[in-house]
Formats: sequence, structure tokens, C-alpha cells
Amino acid sequence: MKDLDFMARAIELAKKGQLKVQPNPMVGCVIVKNNKIIGEGWHQEYGKNHAEINAIKSCKKKFGTNKAIKLIAGSDVYVNLEPCSIERNTPPCSNALIEYQIKKLFCGTLDPNPKINGRGIKLLRKAGIEVKVGLLKKECNELNRIFFTNQKQSRPYIILKSAQSLDGKIALKSGESSWISSPESRKNSHHIRSMVKGILVGRNTAEQDNPSLTVRLAKNELGLTKNEVLEQPVKIIIGNLKKSKKVSKIFAGKSKIIIASKQPAKKFGNIEYLEYKNKNFLKKFLQDLLDRNISSILVEGGQKTLNTFIVNNLFDELVLYTAPMFLGAKSKDAISLNAPDSIKASKKLKMVKQEKFKDDIKTTYYNTNV
Amino acid sequence: MKDLDFMARAIELAKKGQLKVQPNPMVGCVIVKNNKIIGEGWHQEYGKNHAEINAIKSCKKKFGTNKAIKLIAGSDVYVNLEPCSIERNTPPCSNALIEYQIKKLFCGTLDPNPKINGRGIKLLRKAGIEVKVGLLKKECNELNRIFFTNQKQSRPYIILKSAQSLDGKIALKSGESSWISSPESRKNSHHIRSMVKGILVGRNTAEQDNPSLTVRLAKNELGLTKNEVLEQPVKIIIGNLKKSKKVSKIFAGKSKIIIASKQPAKKFGNIEYLEYKNKNFLKKFLQDLLDRNISSILVEGGQKTLNTFIVNNLFDELVLYTAPMFLGAKSKDAISLNAPDSIKASKKLKMVKQEKFKDDIKTTYYNTNV
Repeated sequence: MKDLDFMARAIELAKKGQLKVQPNPMVGCVIVKNNKIIGEGWHQEYGKNHAEINAIKSCKKKFGTNKAIKLIAGSDVYVNLEPCSIERNTPPCSNALIEYQIKKLFCGTLDPNPKINGRGIKLLRKAGIEVKVGLLKKECNELNRIFFTNQKQSRPYIILKSAQSLDGKIALKSGESSWISSPESRKNSHHIRSMVKGILVGRNTAEQDNPSLTVRLAKNELGLTKNEVLEQPVKIIIGNLKKSKKVSKIFAGKSKIIIASKQPAKKFGNIEYLEYKNKNFLKKFLQDLLDRNISSILVEGGQKTLNTFIVNNLFDELVLYTAPMFLGAKSKDAISLNAPDSIKASKKLKMVKQEKFKDDIKTTYYNTNV
Repeated sequence: MKDLDFMARAIELAKKGQLKVQPNPMVGCVIVKNNKIIGEGWHQEYGKNHAEINAIKSCKKKFGTNKAIKLIAGSDVYVNLEPCSIERNTPPCSNALIEYQIKKLFCGTLDPNPKINGRGIKLLRKAGIEVKVGLLKKECNELNRIFFTNQKQSRPYIILKSAQSLDGKIALKSGESSWISSPESRKNSHHIRSMVKGILVGRNTAEQDNPSLTVRLAKNELGLTKNEVLEQPVKIIIGNLKKSKKVSKIFAGKSKIIIASKQPAKKFGNIEYLEYKNKNFLKKFLQDLLDRNISSILVEGGQKTLNTFIVNNLFDELVLYTAPMFLGAKSKDAISLNAPDSIKASKKLKMVKQEKFKDDIKTTYYNTNV
């Protein structure tokens, strides 16, 4: 096996933490001696051991503590992200790697946090450990898009989602919009929900659709074991939502609910009201969400809400489900923006993935101009 | 090898005729003796030998005439379409198969032409040849969608093509529409042009865009050898087009041009005017195109022309290139239809293929409700 293969394995391990590590990054770690993997681990859950510590533990479990200590000394370690150098929930990993006297560290990317960025590496080099940064850099960046966005933009990673017809419509004028996408698409959208910390809709959508805003997938569909728990995303509503019959599903269940409006800030039970008097409250609001560990949100509509995020360039990803039907020119647009002055000046996205769900297509775009 | 493998090979061979057999169907033929292929051929060009005859010829070339005659006697023959039983450009293939005393015929589909449908099979069975119909039927039908449409609908196979933004727009209000799709998409659209016998645009599009309506691909890009000639598609315009400077590109070159309008019918040089006094002339016009051996057309726009074909349910395929940009709600719709009464009543298509061309996606839909 080659360096690239070991790093690819570290990335593969990291992904196992996808549903449970936020707001932390996904991290995988592989310890190699004489071209053989002697230990591997990943960050499994927010607040629990980091990947490096779990890799050391796995080595000890396999070889016994004494032999493991001897093996790790002089080993090569592969990790997708710079080892931490600051004590937070757990002791810093850089210290452990120094203590165990590893020989060489391959790390995919530096930590984007300005307080850490390169500091862990510096510590390791100072201790005589050879460090190589940048192996599978692109893949390591891609893996932790959420974490990197949190660190660099001081806001949650934002995914906009919409369904639309071939002619870009989401509903008839009558308001009828039910099930323009296929059951397969709708199921897939629950997978997206499972990967975010919050689901956001505007007041109109909440009142019109009475959505439950929960992940409705079985544990095995999410790759979770029976004993694992999926924390439901926080339900986030923009606008002053009346606790009427209409929105009964949002208030059902125990998920945390955040409502952003002009109403005075208050908290009762699982509901928190955030108060914003300024009309341009979106940036502040997003920062407030991040402060509450909501590191990623899925914005599900309606049109006005989606428009607002796009116009303010506050999104990282757009997911479109396109159903193979025409709803007509006068039906309701899925997204409704002002026209650019020229085609050259129009907002362009990067297409990153296309998938098929029955007769629908799902296309995923990145906003590369954040 | 199994029956299915031999039929799959026949289909593979048939496809080699794709660019040159229309209005004939694509046909491939495989002759098998003792589970070994002893001859294979395909219909290579309109007016030339049919697949069965070419397969017999290839057997003779390989084994010499006398040995070939002995080998073919008692053999199994695989052909995707029912062998012809009517003398047209070439003697009927059914006769040849009887003459050469094959034992068994596997054929994928019957000939959709009501005059033939099953007649070839009947002849063969009468002569004591065992016939099995329906092997890889779905694939054989798919292969000859164009031919089947011609026979059943008495009109060309119709492909509608458009490019659009994520919000379903094709141009800014100013009319600016240049290059919303990527060079890769535009190149791919020339491959579609190469597979049809005619390219159709409305008068407005012709006058506004001054398109050349030709296939601009090198022979090797089309899989043609140096000596092969690609016949350019006929240029078809709906509406009374003035031979002004604006449309200079349409009238450049030697391709045949058909103009459908209220102008009196006339012919001069490579240009033919077809006269239609009735406003609802589309069906008659399409039949007139088929009578001129135009078995497939690509409708490239503009919006009004596309609308007309969709509203009249006169299309078999829709190809959409979607560019990753927003052009705004008030920009020009790519397709502009009336809204259905309900989502259930909306026109639904079948998604059959999605491809990627740089950041554009290309989606191909079939109209299953023809």
C-alpha cells in the first residue's frame, strides 16, 4: 500500500462519524508500521475521543499495551485533519502523538480555525516529528466542508433544497404542490435531513404545509446500529409562528425548536424564541445558530425564504429535485430572483453530483463564490 | 454463449448503421452453428443490403461459398427485427433464409409496419423454420424507436431540444441568450443533430440567431471512416422566412432546405417551399416530411415552436441541457405552457438518461403518452 491508500483509508474511517460528530469535523486516523496498518480509529461522536486516540486504543487492543507502545514508536500516522493542539473536551492529540514518539505524520489539511491553523503541526515538528501536509488535500477539504465553512464563515453550512418541475415551478397557482417529487426523492431528502443539525423553513411554509421537520428513516436505513441514537435536527422557523392547529406537527415531538422573529426573546420547554428587530438579521441569526452548535442547516423553503438566502449569497449547496412534468408558465416559481444585467453577470454554481430517483433527477450544486 | 448473448451481439451490430440507415431500421444479424458464430452482418446504409444478406456474405467470405452453404443449412439465426417479406430496394430476406435452409430463427420484434407485421414470420414457419419472437424485445424496441414511430404514427420521430437555466429560463428579457450552455453541451448537441434527418426551427429563431443548422463534428468524432460521408440533415423552417442577410448561414452550404408557410409551394435549387393554408397544419406537415424520407427531426426552438409541439403532443423525446445559473423570474421561459388543472393532470414524461457536460446536466425524457 502507498501513502495515498493509507490516507484514503483515514478518510473512509472519518466518514463513519458523519451523523454524530457535528459541530466537530470528521476525522479518521491510521497508524502504519513497516507498511502495515497497526491501528486505526475515527472520531465517533461529539465530545468523545478524537480519531488519533481511538487509533492508539485500537493498536493497544490488538497487540496489548506494551507491544503497542513499542510499535507506535517510530510509526507513520495518517490523519485527514491537523491534530488538535488545544485542550477542549479531550486532551490535545498532538501531545499524544509526541508522547508515543511517532516518526512521521501525514495530514491532509490544516485546521481552518485561525487559533489552531498550523499550530499542531508546529508542535509536532518541534518535537522532531516529520510532518507532511496536503496528501489528498482536495478530498480532505471536501470531507469537512461543513466544519471548514463553520470556521471560515462563522455560520452554519447552508444547504438549500427545492423540488421543481421541468419548467422550474413548485406549485400550481391554487397552491397545490403536493408530491410533485417521487416517493424515492422524498425518502432521499430525509437522508439529507439526517446529516444536518437544523431544518429551516419560513413561516408561510410552516403554516401552509404543516411539516413535521423530522428525519423519518429507520436506523438501518441510516447505517446506525440498534443501540445508536439519531439526534433529530433542530426545527428552525423564520417568522412569527402562531401555535395554532395548522402547525401541530412542528410542535409535536421533543425536538428543539427555534423561532426567529420580532417577538421578545424567551425560552420555554424545548422552544426558544430569538428576537431580531433589524430587517437584515440573517447574518446575526446564522451566527446565533452556530453559537448553539447548529453547524449545518437545511433550508427547505418556501420560495421567499430560498430567494432571501440566495440573494444574500448565504448558501453553500443547492439541492434540486426535478420532476418530469410541466406545471405551466403561470404556476409558482420554485425560486424567483431578479434577472442579472447580463448572462455573464448571472450567478453561476458548480454542479457536483447528479442522481436519479425513479423519474426525478437530483442535482447538487456548490456555491463556489462564498 | 447463450441465446441472449447472440441477440445482444445482433443489436450491437445493428447500431453500427445508426448514422446511415434511416428511414430504414437498424438491423443486425448473427448466424450460429454449434454454438459458434459463423457469420454476422448489419444493414449498413439505406438502399444497400439488409443485415441477413450481409451475414450470409460474411459467412461465405470466411469459409468459401460451398462450405458456407453447408454450414448455414441447419443453423440458428439471430436478428433484432422480423426479416422483410416484401421486395423493395433489395430481395426479401425471408426468402434468403428459407433458401439457405436455416433451422431456427430468433427475432427480437415483429415489423411494426401493418403490411409486414408477422408476415415474414409466417412465411418462414410455413417453410418449416422454427421461429421464436421476443428475445430481448425491450432492447430491440428501444433500438428502433425512430422506425417504430414512423410506422405507427406516420410521422418523423420528434426530438425537442432546449437549454435552460436552473430556473427554467433560456434568455434575458433583452433577448441575450448566447452560450448559456457549456461548449461541451453544445458539442454534444451536434451529436444529436448527426442522428436525425432534419433540424427544425421556427422563423423567429432563424432570424434572431442566424443558425447554420449543420452537424459540425469531424468524421472521427462521429465514428465514421475517412471515406464515409455524413449526409447533413435537412434544414426545416416553419414560417415565412425572408432570404435576407440575417439568415445567411441557413442558406449557406448545399443541404436541402424545407420552408413550411402560407407561401405557394415551389422548388428551386436545394430549397423547397411547402404550402399550408390551415393554421393546424402540423400533422399534415409532419407526414409530408416523412414522405420525403425525413424519418427523424430535432426541434431546436424557439420557445413558441417547442410549445406548439408539446401542446399538440407531437414529440417522442425531450432533451434538456440545464446550465448551473439563475436568469431570474422575469427572463424568458425555455418552454411556456398553460398550467394543468391539477398536478395529477399535468403532463408527465419518463426520465431515461442523465449525463454531465462540464457543469451542465443533460436529461433525456421520453413521451410515453404518444
